[in-house]
Amino acid sequence: MATVKLYTDEQAEAVPAVKAVFDDIRATRKSDFINNFWRALANDPANLKRVWETLKSVMTVEGAIDPLTREMIYIAVSTANSCQYCIQSHTAAARNRGMTDAQHGELLSIIGLASQTNALAIAMQVPPDPEFEVK
Amino acid sequence: MATVKLYTDEQAEAVPAVKAVFDDIRATRKSDFINNFWRALANDPANLKRVWETLKSVMTVEGAIDPLTREMIYIAVSTANSCQYCIQSHTAAARNRGMTDAQHGELLSIIGLASQTNALAIAMQVPPDPEFEVK
Amino acid sequence: MATVKLYTDEQAEAVPAVKAVFDDIRATRKSDFINNFWRALANDPANLKRVWETLKSVMTVEGAIDPLTREMIYIAVSTANSCQYCIQSHTAAARNRGMTDAQHGELLSIIGLASQTNALAIAMQVPPDPEFEVK
Amino acid sequence: MATVKLYTDEQAEAVPAVKAVFDDIRATRKSDFINNFWRALANDPANLKRVWETLKSVMTVEGAIDPLTREMIYIAVSTANSCQYCIQSHTAAARNRGMTDAQHGELLSIIGLASQTNALAIAMQVPPDPEFEVK
Amino acid sequence: MATVKLYTDEQAEAVPAVKAVFDDIRATRKSDFINNFWRALANDPANLKRVWETLKSVMTVEGAIDPLTREMIYIAVSTANSCQYCIQSHTAAARNRGMTDAQHGELLSIIGLASQTNALAIAMQVPPDPEFEVK
Amino acid sequence: MATVKLYTDEQAEAVPAVKAVFDDIRATRKSDFINNFWRALANDPANLKRVWETLKSVMTVEGAIDPLTREMIYIAVSTANSCQYCIQSHTAAARNRGMTDAQHGELLSIIGLASQTNALAIAMQVPPDPEFEVK
Repeated sequence: MATVKLYTDEQAEAVPAVKAVFDDIRATRKSDFINNFWRALANDPANLKRVWETLKSVMTVEGAIDPLTREMIYIAVSTANSCQYCIQSHTAAARNRGMTDAQHGELLSIIGLASQTNALAIAMQVPPDPEFEVK
Repeated sequence: MATVKLYTDEQAEAVPAVKAVFDDIRATRKSDFINNFWRALANDPANLKRVWETLKSVMTVEGAIDPLTREMIYIAVSTANSCQYCIQSHTAAARNRGMTDAQHGELLSIIGLASQTNALAIAMQVPPDPEFEVK
Repeated sequence: MATVKLYTDEQAEAVPAVKAVFDDIRATRKSDFINNFWRALANDPANLKRVWETLKSVMTVEGAIDPLTREMIYIAVSTANSCQYCIQSHTAAARNRGMTDAQHGELLSIIGLASQTNALAIAMQVPPDPEFEVK
Repeated sequence: MATVKLYTDEQAEAVPAVKAVFDDIRATRKSDFINNFWRALANDPANLKRVWETLKSVMTVEGAIDPLTREMIYIAVSTANSCQYCIQSHTAAARNRGMTDAQHGELLSIIGLASQTNALAIAMQVPPDPEFEVK
Repeated sequence: MATVKLYTDEQAEAVPAVKAVFDDIRATRKSDFINNFWRALANDPANLKRVWETLKSVMTVEGAIDPLTREMIYIAVSTANSCQYCIQSHTAAARNRGMTDAQHGELLSIIGLASQTNALAIAMQVPPDPEFEVK
Repeated sequence: MATVKLYTDEQAEAVPAVKAVFDDIRATRKSDFINNFWRALANDPANLKRVWETLKSVMTVEGAIDPLTREMIYIAVSTANSCQYCIQSHTAAARNRGMTDAQHGELLSIIGLASQTNALAIAMQVPPDPEFEVK
């Protein structure tokens, strides 16, 4: 159960600062769907706006990393942080952006392997090789 | 300081099961360089072989995700797990596979944003939307 | 589903070491309500007593940090550790101690921001500034 | 060792988007000191600006949580995420904002206790009490 | 809700690479029960095989650590990683291997204590003692 | 660098509450060596006493889990929490209690495997099997 209330469309309409962000989410995504994350964040309109602006800028603008890869990176981080909501929402988003079952399978393999070697390197306290240094 | 000793080339030569893996690492990577992770893992030749075989299969075989993206996913997981060695080794590996400064910058932006929204979704215990369900 | 059984009041009555702690929880909190955490921990009366004594000492005694701030710090840690139960119980506790919606919103902003900059500092392996040193 | 280069003042002067943020950090903090986190983040001026704007807004503006408490919450999150840089920089910041040794000691007690009970609640998979629900 | 579909026995029968692993799980465990983890992993037969082979080798072969202790270590890691499924499956597995309530209680005490002192050592950034060095 | 000062023996002598704990550590362990964790924790004598009493009770009293296994569980938790100090101190402690290289190797294999399957189960959001339920 959520620790905050989830804003309905009606409640969002009543708060201009929330309505403005919800409108922008809908316009940017060309979809009427507002997922629960934003409905929860609406309790703090200032943070809602800040997080949405950052997300819009980082995840939807053209850049050096393609949109599907961004979603796969998001899934990787969300898994390591054990964020159930984020894993589910970004796996759905990655599928919407064309992630195939083969790509999902490989993504999971990489996440699993990285988690394993992370633990091993940490447990052995392996010292970084001087060859890794940034020039 | 490491919690295990690091195998030198001379010590690796003396243990056939270790030597076999070190030889395969050098052949697969077409490089004489063996980084400290493998020198530490050499203390347990069975695990050394298992982890190397998995890593070779997951990270170096042709697949549905390109090699640079795999390294960026690895960096994302290693950051969330706070594995210093892995962050440094895989950032170096990603650069070797062509990661540009622009790509690195975007990768860090995505990791940072995901970490932020992970925390928010967890703190608010946002319930998953039914729309995320896999069909 | 829990990995241990939850002690009912009747079962707690039957084990003097559990009953003693439950009685003290009720007396200390001036409330008849015993939340599930203690009902689960009751399976190990020695640990139940140890954890309750520590919690009573750290969270309820007068100190240099006020009671509401203590609860907000607890929420911060529980979020970063992805403990659903703890987030829900300590958000409820913070509200009982007077946390306003505005304070909750700011708390979430800080937790989100810290999680983001934590990830960035870790991914970049930023070296500590000598200015931070304790004198 | 860092995975990115750290911008010197001279290098920052040469990039207007970096210089603008460094100038604002100095003006906002009324100090000439720019810590390494910003010097590392300067490699991506867009993210540098975004993160600084968020941090300025969340951490330095008047709000419902006092400045010292904000820093203590930051330390709590950074500890749970094992971010060495952040722990050191925000412990120094908290001291600058007046954190006493007694407050630091209590903060550590709370972080330690929360980490302990988080682990216990997770390991026992304690189901949330209905009493925690937000009305 | 899962982010992948769970293979039924009928679907597993239709994919030889999946069927082969399911058959081996049943033969190795001398039980007809295939738990959901493998039914989910079946979406990627290559990873299914790799993970099962590793698990079979690490968890079921005779070794220097007894089978019950292995399961308790698994519970410890799964708790720290906040993996609900893994905590539940390995607590059940540990009970099947003879874990008593007293052992479970002590295990939880140790996990809780370690989580507490981990947080304290991290928050204080305690420097390792030279006495810990491996000779 | 530590965020608190480390108490020397001379400084510890001057604070009766610290001296009492240091004396008990030495008597319990039958060794003059006080490691840095306690020297750091000495800044808060109340927490020093509480943590030491808990540790003494959980780690040194006769129980249902043998002393070496307790240390291996401690290493597992400390690795997942990325606590460098704790990994190094408890690996040294495990060796002092007789951990062989073979046991250490197996321990690392289990920690690595658990970390891998944790990530996979989390990323796939595998639903717990009803068979795991505690009766």
